[in-house]
Amino acid sequence: MWQYHPPLRDIRFVTEELLNLPAQWAQIPAFAEVDADTARQVIEEAGKFASEVLGPLNAVGDVEGCTLKDGIVTTPKGFREAYQAFVQAGWPALACEPEVGGQGLPQSLNAVLHEMLNSANHAWNMYPGLLHGAYESLLAHATPELKARYLPKVVSGEWLSTMCLTEAHAGSDLGLLKTRAEPQPDGSYRVSGTKIFISGGEHDLTDNIVHMVLARIAGAPAGTKGLSLFLVPKVMPDGSRNTLRCDGLEKKMGIKGSATCVMSFEGATGWLVGDVNRGLAGMFVMMNAARLHVGLQGVGHAESAYQNALAYALERVQMRAPLRSPERKVAEADPIALHPAVRHNLLRQRALLEGGRLLAYETAHLLDIAERHPDEAVRHVAHDEVSLLTPICKAFLTDNGFAAAQAAQQVYGGHGYIHDYGVEQCVRDSRISRIYEGTNEIQAIDLLVRKVVADGGVKLAGLIERLQRELPTGELAARVQPWLANWQQATQQLLKHSASDAELPYRVADDYLRLAGLVLLAQGWARAEAVAASHATPFHTAKRETAQYYLDYLLPEAGLCLARIRAGQNPLPQLSAPSA
Amino acid sequence: MWQYHPPLRDIRFVTEELLNLPAQWAQIPAFAEVDADTARQVIEEAGKFASEVLGPLNAVGDVEGCTLKDGIVTTPKGFREAYQAFVQAGWPALACEPEVGGQGLPQSLNAVLHEMLNSANHAWNMYPGLLHGAYESLLAHATPELKARYLPKVVSGEWLSTMCLTEAHAGSDLGLLKTRAEPQPDGSYRVSGTKIFISGGEHDLTDNIVHMVLARIAGAPAGTKGLSLFLVPKVMPDGSRNTLRCDGLEKKMGIKGSATCVMSFEGATGWLVGDVNRGLAGMFVMMNAARLHVGLQGVGHAESAYQNALAYALERVQMRAPLRSPERKVAEADPIALHPAVRHNLLRQRALLEGGRLLAYETAHLLDIAERHPDEAVRHVAHDEVSLLTPICKAFLTDNGFAAAQAAQQVYGGHGYIHDYGVEQCVRDSRISRIYEGTNEIQAIDLLVRKVVADGGVKLAGLIERLQRELPTGELAARVQPWLANWQQATQQLLKHSASDAELPYRVADDYLRLAGLVLLAQGWARAEAVAASHATPFHTAKRETAQYYLDYLLPEAGLCLARIRAGQNPLPQLSAPSA
Repeated sequence: MWQYHPPLRDIRFVTEELLNLPAQWAQIPAFAEVDADTARQVIEEAGKFASEVLGPLNAVGDVEGCTLKDGIVTTPKGFREAYQAFVQAGWPALACEPEVGGQGLPQSLNAVLHEMLNSANHAWNMYPGLLHGAYESLLAHATPELKARYLPKVVSGEWLSTMCLTEAHAGSDLGLLKTRAEPQPDGSYRVSGTKIFISGGEHDLTDNIVHMVLARIAGAPAGTKGLSLFLVPKVMPDGSRNTLRCDGLEKKMGIKGSATCVMSFEGATGWLVGDVNRGLAGMFVMMNAARLHVGLQGVGHAESAYQNALAYALERVQMRAPLRSPERKVAEADPIALHPAVRHNLLRQRALLEGGRLLAYETAHLLDIAERHPDEAVRHVAHDEVSLLTPICKAFLTDNGFAAAQAAQQVYGGHGYIHDYGVEQCVRDSRISRIYEGTNEIQAIDLLVRKVVADGGVKLAGLIERLQRELPTGELAARVQPWLANWQQATQQLLKHSASDAELPYRVADDYLRLAGLVLLAQGWARAEAVAASHATPFHTAKRETAQYYLDYLLPEAGLCLARIRAGQNPLPQLSAPSA
Repeated sequence: MWQYHPPLRDIRFVTEELLNLPAQWAQIPAFAEVDADTARQVIEEAGKFASEVLGPLNAVGDVEGCTLKDGIVTTPKGFREAYQAFVQAGWPALACEPEVGGQGLPQSLNAVLHEMLNSANHAWNMYPGLLHGAYESLLAHATPELKARYLPKVVSGEWLSTMCLTEAHAGSDLGLLKTRAEPQPDGSYRVSGTKIFISGGEHDLTDNIVHMVLARIAGAPAGTKGLSLFLVPKVMPDGSRNTLRCDGLEKKMGIKGSATCVMSFEGATGWLVGDVNRGLAGMFVMMNAARLHVGLQGVGHAESAYQNALAYALERVQMRAPLRSPERKVAEADPIALHPAVRHNLLRQRALLEGGRLLAYETAHLLDIAERHPDEAVRHVAHDEVSLLTPICKAFLTDNGFAAAQAAQQVYGGHGYIHDYGVEQCVRDSRISRIYEGTNEIQAIDLLVRKVVADGGVKLAGLIERLQRELPTGELAARVQPWLANWQQATQQLLKHSASDAELPYRVADDYLRLAGLVLLAQGWARAEAVAASHATPFHTAKRETAQYYLDYLLPEAGLCLARIRAGQNPLPQLSAPSA
């Protein structure tokens, strides 16, 4: 019953009407040949793959899950064939450089692709989801020999990749990692330790798996400054098995088709990626790519939740609506889509979903500019904006994705709790995105402490200035304008008081990030409304209605965030064990 | 790893220090003999049963679930034995009248009992959860013969009971029910139809099951005014099986140990309860009891989520906190309970949990007054307040229960997504309470449309006046005072505009209910703070801190509700199928 239809018209509204990407690409030599037609074709084909190949495997994956036997992991029926088709069609190479076998298309198109893959089948997309990050990390930091040996296979998707960070006692805190790497005379290292929560640590989709492992070389400093990054393959170049294995699969709340592995490295051979003790730098390349990707999971879940809940609400008949159209005057009951509570539910989902899609695609486009624009100054500004927007995309969009899933579940009533309808799987699957790749709380600290406070608010002021500049005229924009000022003002206050109160930014970080997300979407909706205003189609009228809805019902939450940020200037109680 | 410790000290704070229940009972002849010691003993015993007998079965029930074979439902291992011990100890009869075999204790004590049972094992407590409602419905509406035959066994718990309302096409809309009842010459009826989502429709805990079934007698008017209520036993008085059976078990997101049945009635013998076509009246007795009970599920989940997350946060060491106590200056990392984001998470949970407990117990106590107070005028006022507070308890407390569960999950980080830690089960289990017994959106309509608007706000004005009257003096109370006025003012505005805009109360109902809940808890915290202020223990200091936290961080959400209620005066867009 749960279905996924690629929202092609909505995607075009963002890529073409709002962001005008084809014209933007024309200004970047690397994308000069990507025209609107090519982009449309890519997006349509991606939509077909997502809805026709992956969608049907979504429920199957949840029921079957993965199995581990004698160190071999079997993925759900159909997952392997779908992955082969994915590689065959060249999707892994989409946004990789042509010099290493990629297709050289923009990251913004890759973002569209992955939104749809995540909508259709989050669990399946966990396998190729880290591919682009591994590609970027190797491209930036690996030696020419390692690149020659591994990059082409990673780009083609023939081999998949993992990020091996977490250990049982070290999740958010990478400084506590204990996995050891011992230098060998031939320049390789022997890596030993146990990593947990490794997505795709073992599976049957590819013949080899390229593990990117954080470990500590003997004598390295304590904390994160003693971590180095290693490429540790499952299968050695000579075809023998490396000394690593999957020791267990986690039983999880959702994304059950994704193998979440306990990985044991027992003197496994690996090669250094980047400099000694500078492993985090290489891993952060991968993590930043992964964080935007996780934000797209939020958008993907929000889309599938919304479209399924809407379809259900248009069909399910229950009670008379308080306002009835004349032609329904005699009907015993109305579709629940006519009931105000359900309309609120769906309008709220729609406003956050479509606003979130704009934010995610725009961030991906800024990433393209940061990497490919010919003007260094332009690249620099874009890079700064991406560094601010990445934690917002990760946290805000996944909070909204989970909220959408459980709002959709509410639309289904009792049926929403029953497995067969699919929406409860969406709730379970979407929940993980708020946790992994750095919890959303860590993202908030990244934004406020490491990005905003660290440079005295310089980068942030630049971003807000650009948002001001791009604000259209009109009534909605006039309502958004003060919120950009509020955001800037709150930032100034925090910068001022943080000097004498080091804990302050940590106390208000979550509300600060949510404020930022809410205001960013408001600015996006003001732009969307201005664009839609010049067309008289029902499609564009709905966009204007949604913009209005966002400003009336969603943006006021920014006031709540501000109130909490103000309250945050006072000390926060400490917790202790409960009284008997 | 998931554990439940009865929060006896916190419960006593509400029952004794805040509500002063023993003194209150002294004024009600029916409870004149219930003193503080008796109440404490009952609560401690209930806590033991919940934590020692039910707690250990919680995870088992989730993994095993129920099975259906040849019409026989087998509950998870240990459920049957636990239920026998429950009956043996006399728990079912706790708040039933002595004349029919009950213990005659107050409903407020029953509320404490069921909060704890729900904390320890929501799925198991689905079986006896409807018992008290069935008892009340039979007591109020059944004929003397039916009472004599069924009431003693229901009171003792020897037989369990169900509410058979929902049909596949009729969930929220009971008017669409199709199940038929055909009168027989002997005064009985033959009931035919299929009911879905019947909790405990079939199981192996008791030898007989008393189904309370809504059905339509031939010739009855359409809609809810043609529904009658029937008692339809699984086993007939002569020991033969009635013609009804369980045709299927739902595969659900959570509460897997609870058998959710498809029930087929094929000319099953039943007897009328209450008058012909007045079935809803009898069912509403049961539903109101059930709604308060579901609110207690919200409190129960919030409690187990909070106490487990707190214990985890005090133990899990990860990263240095921005403010470190001198004795931790050299430690590599701190318990995450010291990190501001985690403190916010837990303080928020605590403020909503403890405020919610007060609201739930107080509502149960008002129910006692409504039913047992010697003064009719006092009974009447209490009855009116209960009618307003019941939908608020159901919706607000279960929204908060689910929010607490998933907030607790966030505290666990990646481990929160892993089955073994138990918190993901709490998220799945707690989700249903927002849906069943009338979705929370239905509760909001019940509150605003059927209760507040229907009588021109008279009952509500009475409630707010009492809340004003009971507000202590002091700084916190002074901050709560304007919110009582805001609530009253918003109500007046809605009453005024609803006259010319019939859809208005439906558009704002959800925000109105949340506003009510938030202000009620604020008033409760002001009282709690005043009581705690006269004691200098760490326990009471924590209460004062939590009160302050509630006013600083939670109450501001009431402003958001008000903003949305104001926005709701404008029309709300209609939804249509998406554009291709």
